[in-house]
Amino acid sequence: MTQPASALPAVGVDIGGTKVAGGVVAADGTLLDTARRATPGSSVADTEDAIVDVVEELAGRHDGPLVGVGVGAAGWFDRTGDTVLFSPHLAWRNSTLRTDLAARLQRPLWVGNDADAAAWAEYRYGAARGASLALMITLGTGIGGGIVIDGRLQRGAHGVAGEWGHMRVVPDGRLCACGNRGCWEQYASGTALGQTAREVALTSPAAAGRLLERVDGRAERLTGVDVAQTAADGDPLALELVTEVGSWLGQGIADLAAVLDPEVVVIGGGVSVLGELVLGPARARLDRALPGRGFRPGPRIVAAALGPTAGLIGAADLVRTGVDPRE
Amino acid sequence: MTQPASALPAVGVDIGGTKVAGGVVAADGTLLDTARRATPGSSVADTEDAIVDVVEELAGRHDGPLVGVGVGAAGWFDRTGDTVLFSPHLAWRNSTLRTDLAARLQRPLWVGNDADAAAWAEYRYGAARGASLALMITLGTGIGGGIVIDGRLQRGAHGVAGEWGHMRVVPDGRLCACGNRGCWEQYASGTALGQTAREVALTSPAAAGRLLERVDGRAERLTGVDVAQTAADGDPLALELVTEVGSWLGQGIADLAAVLDPEVVVIGGGVSVLGELVLGPARARLDRALPGRGFRPGPRIVAAALGPTAGLIGAADLVRTGVDPRE
Repeated sequence: MTQPASALPAVGVDIGGTKVAGGVVAADGTLLDTARRATPGSSVADTEDAIVDVVEELAGRHDGPLVGVGVGAAGWFDRTGDTVLFSPHLAWRNSTLRTDLAARLQRPLWVGNDADAAAWAEYRYGAARGASLALMITLGTGIGGGIVIDGRLQRGAHGVAGEWGHMRVVPDGRLCACGNRGCWEQYASGTALGQTAREVALTSPAAAGRLLERVDGRAERLTGVDVAQTAADGDPLALELVTEVGSWLGQGIADLAAVLDPEVVVIGGGVSVLGELVLGPARARLDRALPGRGFRPGPRIVAAALGPTAGLIGAADLVRTGVDPRE
Repeated sequence: MTQPASALPAVGVDIGGTKVAGGVVAADGTLLDTARRATPGSSVADTEDAIVDVVEELAGRHDGPLVGVGVGAAGWFDRTGDTVLFSPHLAWRNSTLRTDLAARLQRPLWVGNDADAAAWAEYRYGAARGASLALMITLGTGIGGGIVIDGRLQRGAHGVAGEWGHMRVVPDGRLCACGNRGCWEQYASGTALGQTAREVALTSPAAAGRLLERVDGRAERLTGVDVAQTAADGDPLALELVTEVGSWLGQGIADLAAVLDPEVVVIGGGVSVLGELVLGPARARLDRALPGRGFRPGPRIVAAALGPTAGLIGAADLVRTGVDPRE
């Protein structure tokens, strides 16, 4: 589907809320070298400086030619990759990240959404290898996503496909940062874990004893990380909250199966470190909620194979395999 | 994307609940001839006989070679097109429609979902011509759908993509024939129109006077067709019910935009004869509900251009353009 890939390594860069992580990625997906910079604050100039620093550090240490640089970031990119439409953590808004970086790096460049890059990495080297239709769902603060159909990354007509964290799953439901109510990511994400934990801890502090121990009894401070760690320790309430998030995950996957009929759905992101505590309830819910169950196969739900480096591996591979976002 | 199409005409067949409609379709999408057979009952053998009759009648009248036969039916087909997984109106279930028809017709054959065929027709000749990512939504008794991305019909990993009528839009909502609750088609379809009308007429018979006139005062007999016709006559309650269905349509399109980011969404099917009475509220709702509105473009919502012959035109074109469902 795509043109033959170069056999040379490429640099991949993943831009997070607090850091820029880069790596040199070989044609077989192996991570040959890594580098990172902290990016305190949300200055566009500082972040671009950090990207350039990371790339130059890696290129300086690398012996031999590099195909180019792939950059993945949380945010919405237009179909050309030239313009950042929206970014939750950074001050990019209608900014010309790609053009700026192209001028400074003077290397072939892929710029796009981090979950798209992770989806591509899992398709090429990870849990979705060879799948005819693979979806990647990243469960973190919110929900990110990417779609690979017949060996092509699908980014939609305007570049923002896979933003299913903002499907409305509950009319008049929880308020979302996007301005709508009832978005899926308000029920299936790290934020959802924290939100429900705070609600339960305020109304039933006795049941939430082990959660409240972690925050000096201050329910309003509970986060998804607190719930995840308390669940991993075996606390029944925390386990129940994780199960609920897993169940909402499975329900949303049933909805996505009605739309796209995927072969495999790969679950990554911070919340996915809970593994079967989340994936088990998700599969159970999918078994009950899949439209047409009994008459049709459903998707497999599997854990991501590449961990937190999926984004930079995928971004590197996207520039290496010559997927021009402008095609 | 697809191989060069034959310039010869093909036969298209659309299988409905009560009839089989066929036509000879030229390479430019023109309908050259039509034929139909009633199919009382839901016998598989009778329906297959009717298909063969329609094809032989059309082929007998047609002067010159025909590329093959395309058959679209309400139902779920596996990815090969060989097996009907499920059909709401007909007794096909795990039946071998394609193999049976191939043996009897001895012509190249495309067999698949009717909404997929209609989507393809609107992409090739209708309201979605040239769109990079087009969705077709057929509003009838339920909701059907089809997806065309970059000039390819996308049918999912198992052949059943585009069944978004069964996205859950209301937890614990209205019971659906599929066995789940809260499916989109229970809120945005002809069935939804009738359901809401019956509820209102039972609780507020005075407000529903003009609706009840149509059914001799028997609220339980009200259907979507009654509401549509009363709305077209200007009855305020019926108009309100149609507006509500349009609004649910727009909400679901916002959800699909979060998943697939389409360029255009084509609305067809029986309910779409209401035109702007449905499409206006759908657009208004999409404007308010599109995730990321203000930062990204949304899809255009447009009326289908080809009317009730879209299915057979698309099925004919799919065999003519050589899209083998087994590829």
